[in-house]
Amino acid sequence: MRLIGKQEIEDIAVGAALLGTGGGGDPYIGKLMAQQAVEEFGPIKLISVDEVPDDALIVPSAMMGAPTVMVEKIPSGNEALGAFEALQNYLGKEIYATMPIEAGGVNSLLPFALAAKLGLPVIDADGMGRAFPELQMVTFYLDGVSATPMVLSDEKGNSSILNTVNSVWAEKIARVATVEMGGSTMLSIYPMDGKTVKQSSIHNTLLLEENIGKAIREAKQNKLNPITEVLNLTNGHTLFKGKVSDIDRKTETGFARGKATIEGMEDNQGETLSLYFQNEHLLAKSGDKVLCMTPDLIAVLDTDTGLPITTEGLRYGARCVVIGLPADAKWRTEKGIETAGPRYFGYDLDYTPLEELLEGEK
Amino acid sequence: MRLIGKQEIEDIAVGAALLGTGGGGDPYIGKLMAQQAVEEFGPIKLISVDEVPDDALIVPSAMMGAPTVMVEKIPSGNEALGAFEALQNYLGKEIYATMPIEAGGVNSLLPFALAAKLGLPVIDADGMGRAFPELQMVTFYLDGVSATPMVLSDEKGNSSILNTVNSVWAEKIARVATVEMGGSTMLSIYPMDGKTVKQSSIHNTLLLEENIGKAIREAKQNKLNPITEVLNLTNGHTLFKGKVSDIDRKTETGFARGKATIEGMEDNQGETLSLYFQNEHLLAKSGDKVLCMTPDLIAVLDTDTGLPITTEGLRYGARCVVIGLPADAKWRTEKGIETAGPRYFGYDLDYTPLEELLEGEK
Repeated sequence: MRLIGKQEIEDIAVGAALLGTGGGGDPYIGKLMAQQAVEEFGPIKLISVDEVPDDALIVPSAMMGAPTVMVEKIPSGNEALGAFEALQNYLGKEIYATMPIEAGGVNSLLPFALAAKLGLPVIDADGMGRAFPELQMVTFYLDGVSATPMVLSDEKGNSSILNTVNSVWAEKIARVATVEMGGSTMLSIYPMDGKTVKQSSIHNTLLLEENIGKAIREAKQNKLNPITEVLNLTNGHTLFKGKVSDIDRKTETGFARGKATIEGMEDNQGETLSLYFQNEHLLAKSGDKVLCMTPDLIAVLDTDTGLPITTEGLRYGARCVVIGLPADAKWRTEKGIETAGPRYFGYDLDYTPLEELLEGEK
Repeated sequence: MRLIGKQEIEDIAVGAALLGTGGGGDPYIGKLMAQQAVEEFGPIKLISVDEVPDDALIVPSAMMGAPTVMVEKIPSGNEALGAFEALQNYLGKEIYATMPIEAGGVNSLLPFALAAKLGLPVIDADGMGRAFPELQMVTFYLDGVSATPMVLSDEKGNSSILNTVNSVWAEKIARVATVEMGGSTMLSIYPMDGKTVKQSSIHNTLLLEENIGKAIREAKQNKLNPITEVLNLTNGHTLFKGKVSDIDRKTETGFARGKATIEGMEDNQGETLSLYFQNEHLLAKSGDKVLCMTPDLIAVLDTDTGLPITTEGLRYGARCVVIGLPADAKWRTEKGIETAGPRYFGYDLDYTPLEELLEGEK
């Protein structure tokens, strides 16, 4: 167990946005929420997966919705509290801790704001090791853990306790309800015992996020290249260097979908990168050449600061470095690829690991 | 208390379809569901509102969805049972009885099928005295009774316990969830105590339905005009006689919307009636002349048999008599008209009672 204060939250927010691969919410909002909670309730306990009793009830918490909408609807944290308490009452058992289901500027930090209000610890783990757009795209799902009973609630006071036959149905019903409720909701989802968390989560995601954020911060102080530091921490690779020349983005059926075009600079002069996203970046192509595909991670970093840029933060003319990071091994399994690989998102491509794609490059 | 057997169900189904004003579901399906329940469990207890203890918990039950979809998805009754039991568990109190929220071929009979399975009585009352397309369009709502906590469930096994800030939000969220769940769901909704049922429901709707069905059936045997018999029972008026010449209908955002055109015959030779509907008939116009508008009832009856024709049963060439019936006094109040009057549905008309419209006619 260690205590998380304002500096740690600052660092986690940056690392989370990077692993959020363009989605997972605005790190500025996540940071504000969590830091406000620390100011009010003091530092928050972060425990490792090993510290969780096997029979403890764990309920992850998250925000659902298109990131474009999340920016406009800053959560107060009380919606999350309502969802959490409604699920605790429904299950009739005290909740031991919360945790994120994904990495992302909002979704890594929201559990801290909630935990602070409730005096609960946060578990250093998540269900993606990155961000993904749909609720069944978690390692819990790969192991057969049900998303429901789950609660979604909005800032107006509406809430819904869902029980579904599988997590794909949970995604479908929660998505249309979220759109109707104004585009974003708070979720208490994937209730499970401590033993299941140990088996089915990705461990130490928050520590990795903090280390990434810290590395970027300290690189600036030490006049190091922040992107090199990040690649060292994540086994990542530089995919492309350039300047954003076009962004085609629309929010439809509850998602921010689109394509960003980046004109090459330096080594990539004369080349053009296409980045396809659905909340998160899913595919990076330079001309016909695929450089990285889901479930591997694609992140866009500011060339100068190394800070991650979310899909909604992409602006014409921004100079950036696009990097690729290998996904957790749980995603590189048959079920992982079926659940969140390129074909699920409609790309007619067989999944090829980032390392192999870059190998072919040389 | 009296027992409802197969003949009563047959009659209720016909009367319910008539008060269903084109919507409320196919009476054939409602009849099958309820009669099958009677065969399996014996006659069902129907109690009057006066027999309900003030502090008893009453939970109405209904099917939600476009009638066009209901025809394709015949409910087994188990979905309704699931929703009902989920709400009983959630409320932590035994449910004393169920009742319909609206008149209609399915929605007047579904509570019988459910009550039979559970050994509960049905209360002779409803929340509309007719059918309406949206969940907040009930007399309970006019009196400030909340639609939630409510449960909706589908035949696959998905269910949702909703708590909303008002019944309009319950309608919005339940509607999109229903569309996503395949177009129809079972509801347990508007839980209330016996005292509230007494104050806020429309009493003896099922008895009226039974009397209408019986009158139509006996008119045939006694060679009387069934439509005259119905008008006597309901203070109704003949609006138009003719033949269906066009039906423009589509199912969108969970509703069957459209317009039927009827070419005049007999007294109405040379005239054309336009019937506008959203699940239920809402407006009848002959040329520019409005003959009847919501919340007053518009029903289409087969010229020969007097049997009601639902909007999805309207066929080109069908000879019919269109009748208008005055709505219950609860609907003719300011809040009633605001909730289900012509302007709510987008018609630029001030509500004028049927009797006044026909007065002007003479």
